[in-house]
Amino acid sequence: MTFLLNCWYLAAWTADVPVGGHLFRRIAGKPLIIARDSAGLLSALLDRCPHRFVPLSRGQIRDDKIVCAYHGIAFDLKGRCIANPHGAITSALTVPGFVVTERHHAIWVWLGDADKADPASIMDLSLMDSLPDTAQNFGYELIQANYQLCADNILDLSHADYLHPDSLGGGATTRAKQSVEETPEALTVKWLAKDDVIPPALDGIMREKGQPGDVHISVRWQAPSVMMINFGADRPHAAEPDRAETWGIHVMVPIDDKSTHYFFWTGRDKFWDADFNELVRQMTTNAFVNEDKPLLEAQQANLGDGNFEDLQPALLTIDNASVRARRRLKTMIEAETV
Amino acid sequence: MTFLLNCWYLAAWTADVPVGGHLFRRIAGKPLIIARDSAGLLSALLDRCPHRFVPLSRGQIRDDKIVCAYHGIAFDLKGRCIANPHGAITSALTVPGFVVTERHHAIWVWLGDADKADPASIMDLSLMDSLPDTAQNFGYELIQANYQLCADNILDLSHADYLHPDSLGGGATTRAKQSVEETPEALTVKWLAKDDVIPPALDGIMREKGQPGDVHISVRWQAPSVMMINFGADRPHAAEPDRAETWGIHVMVPIDDKSTHYFFWTGRDKFWDADFNELVRQMTTNAFVNEDKPLLEAQQANLGDGNFEDLQPALLTIDNASVRARRRLKTMIEAETV
Amino acid sequence: MTFLLNCWYLAAWTADVPVGGHLFRRIAGKPLIIARDSAGLLSALLDRCPHRFVPLSRGQIRDDKIVCAYHGIAFDLKGRCIANPHGAITSALTVPGFVVTERHHAIWVWLGDADKADPASIMDLSLMDSLPDTAQNFGYELIQANYQLCADNILDLSHADYLHPDSLGGGATTRAKQSVEETPEALTVKWLAKDDVIPPALDGIMREKGQPGDVHISVRWQAPSVMMINFGADRPHAAEPDRAETWGIHVMVPIDDKSTHYFFWTGRDKFWDADFNELVRQMTTNAFVNEDKPLLEAQQANLGDGNFEDLQPALLTIDNASVRARRRLKTMIEAETV
Repeated sequence: MTFLLNCWYLAAWTADVPVGGHLFRRIAGKPLIIARDSAGLLSALLDRCPHRFVPLSRGQIRDDKIVCAYHGIAFDLKGRCIANPHGAITSALTVPGFVVTERHHAIWVWLGDADKADPASIMDLSLMDSLPDTAQNFGYELIQANYQLCADNILDLSHADYLHPDSLGGGATTRAKQSVEETPEALTVKWLAKDDVIPPALDGIMREKGQPGDVHISVRWQAPSVMMINFGADRPHAAEPDRAETWGIHVMVPIDDKSTHYFFWTGRDKFWDADFNELVRQMTTNAFVNEDKPLLEAQQANLGDGNFEDLQPALLTIDNASVRARRRLKTMIEAETV
Repeated sequence: MTFLLNCWYLAAWTADVPVGGHLFRRIAGKPLIIARDSAGLLSALLDRCPHRFVPLSRGQIRDDKIVCAYHGIAFDLKGRCIANPHGAITSALTVPGFVVTERHHAIWVWLGDADKADPASIMDLSLMDSLPDTAQNFGYELIQANYQLCADNILDLSHADYLHPDSLGGGATTRAKQSVEETPEALTVKWLAKDDVIPPALDGIMREKGQPGDVHISVRWQAPSVMMINFGADRPHAAEPDRAETWGIHVMVPIDDKSTHYFFWTGRDKFWDADFNELVRQMTTNAFVNEDKPLLEAQQANLGDGNFEDLQPALLTIDNASVRARRRLKTMIEAETV
Repeated sequence: MTFLLNCWYLAAWTADVPVGGHLFRRIAGKPLIIARDSAGLLSALLDRCPHRFVPLSRGQIRDDKIVCAYHGIAFDLKGRCIANPHGAITSALTVPGFVVTERHHAIWVWLGDADKADPASIMDLSLMDSLPDTAQNFGYELIQANYQLCADNILDLSHADYLHPDSLGGGATTRAKQSVEETPEALTVKWLAKDDVIPPALDGIMREKGQPGDVHISVRWQAPSVMMINFGADRPHAAEPDRAETWGIHVMVPIDDKSTHYFFWTGRDKFWDADFNELVRQMTTNAFVNEDKPLLEAQQANLGDGNFEDLQPALLTIDNASVRARRRLKTMIEAETV
């Protein structure tokens, strides 16, 4: 499988790589070390010594350098050899590195042409900064399914009415009017359900409970699969204003063609105490780990080595956004591989 | 590996799918749901929603319909869409189905051309109906070996003298005169050993114990691998008539090229009490699970990805039936794939 | 992967196959039974009955014959059929055998052309015979890495300074002058470090501890991967003679392209008591199992299905011997496959 290279892949949440720390992560088939030096500067290196190809992550990574476990060759965190006990330092003794940057509590790597790497093209997730820590939850799950199947799942949120009836569902998304907008940078899908059932997860943070209202949802997608969700409700005719807004960030990062790093985040505009935040974390994790994950993995298993599109799925209007996003991504990948 | 499609595959024993029940079974590479509606009518459907290809078996299957877990699309048990919450019901929203029928306490599916499916071509196993429940045992085992290796095993029962010396063996089959008969529908192999050692499993249900007699065995085979065994003994010169007849049904259904659903059944003409039946069940299971299964799986492992016939096995006269059955099956498969 | 056939593969240590005993071992993709008859004569047979290809090792191997578990066909330990209960003994009923010989406490098999098998070409390991049992240790480990990666590891012993700093390392090998000599039969790499740190494992058996001295190491390699190591130290200016010599035998035998039978042996010229020998055994096993093995397996995993040489490793002078050995072996394999 060919992956898009000229794009930002979320490699880790900021908190996962403290000053002086590092982690290993395979992205789009490449084994990577994501490290942060003592001055806080990030780097992303291929986790493979250029001499014998052993993983550098088996060696010592500290004091802003990496010493290979096998023959003691040392590298700085930019991948430049700084000590070769066995002879001259040559250009062959360089560890390939990748552009890395940090934005919105996340670390992003660019696997393609470094000249094209513009951090400004990372989706604007600055909303995260406006919320207190106790109104946010960060998550990660490894999913044994292709990242595009995971992306399709969010680009058609009508599935929540069936797969998550007790939390995110309720029928409003299915009944909603759906629209898709495209710009050169992004694709946005919106659902608006007037005077409909407010999903339990929103209803719980409304002023009045169990009353109908208007439900609005949007998903903004950027290639390859970074998504920002807004999931809210409003009762425009209530005696007192009664609104709720929640947000989700879902980023699917391919490990290989059948497994995915799935990063997710949720935030909301009220109920900012730590106990409630913990309840939200549990509900979100339950929906994701016990409902989405097994279904996505069963879907992948049912495809086997077959390609989803080649098997000619029955297309419905609810697939409008995912079909367009797949087409855009395919065009981008083809443009790179010419 | 190419499998025969225009044939009856045993999918389940009747008792495995009660009214309103269903089970999942992969046959010849295809994931299937075998379901029985509230009126008792059977159906066999591909276990794959035509929309997103998730397994339908993850959804709700009750009240004679299947509701997909992912987007709530509903199908009747014939595979016709009966509800699409997301738009029109189109012909694309059809779950492929297969001809299914029930005979002789078993459910049979036909994966090929429906027009050719004739239940009359299922082997006559009506003998099962003439025996009380306590003279019969039904079994199933998943074998990690190709179904043809499993079939060869029964088509040459001389192996019992070596692999099952304490139950089915004793040497008579090896010493017996063997013959093979073929008709357009079936192949039958027979062994007759005069005045020989009666195998322990037969001797135990004879009037006198430990005395020699005539042992007769036959295996009737129909493609792809449905077999009926008769295994009996007689002492024609005994003071009082002293005979024993037992029967076995062995059906090997390919899951893929290296694993097999193995259905087996045994019956006998006497000793019809439940306690003895349980003893027979234990003996049969022991022989099959502890003797045949490990050997067949070691044989498969030794072949690796190699094809048994291509490796040029040394052919003996005892392989007469299995060689002919393989040849017939090969011809049938080739005729389908032209 | 193509393996060299006209060569001696170490199949087992002598002690592993007692009189009347046998073992199973897969070498270069071939499943083998190594057996020793009641007169002490060795044989090596393909572990596959010529009739149905089941493993002969599942049958009875005793009294100098093998009886197949499946149909009772019997073979002598040369692979000749000696009993066929089902008909004539034909030449097809022969188990392929391989030339096998025993030298230097080890059993060696030759998978290629029997006419070319000359035991004199086995590396001279007669040194083993000059040492008492309590100055020797025999080992075996299964490594999930290609045998050439394992061989490279010994052909560049500078790795000990980094991977085994507390036992075999200390820096002397890295600082040493290295030379490589080639003859038609063998390749030898030598390291000599004058007035350097004596590695802990040698220092422990010197007269004085913690003093510098001359460290000398040599590895003699013969294709495909049989190696004899001499690892010693000398203090030429000491008041009393203060020398230590140790030897190692390392033999890497391919199972398949990603796993290896790794046989190892160590010996030394002093400290010949059993307790000290046990300490050496523990130290060696620790270095091998906890340091070399995980590194070699991580190296293999990092290569995936890639070929080490095709990935263009950065070559250092320390790789001189391994590059030459790989080139020699490649030439030999190509000569066989023409």
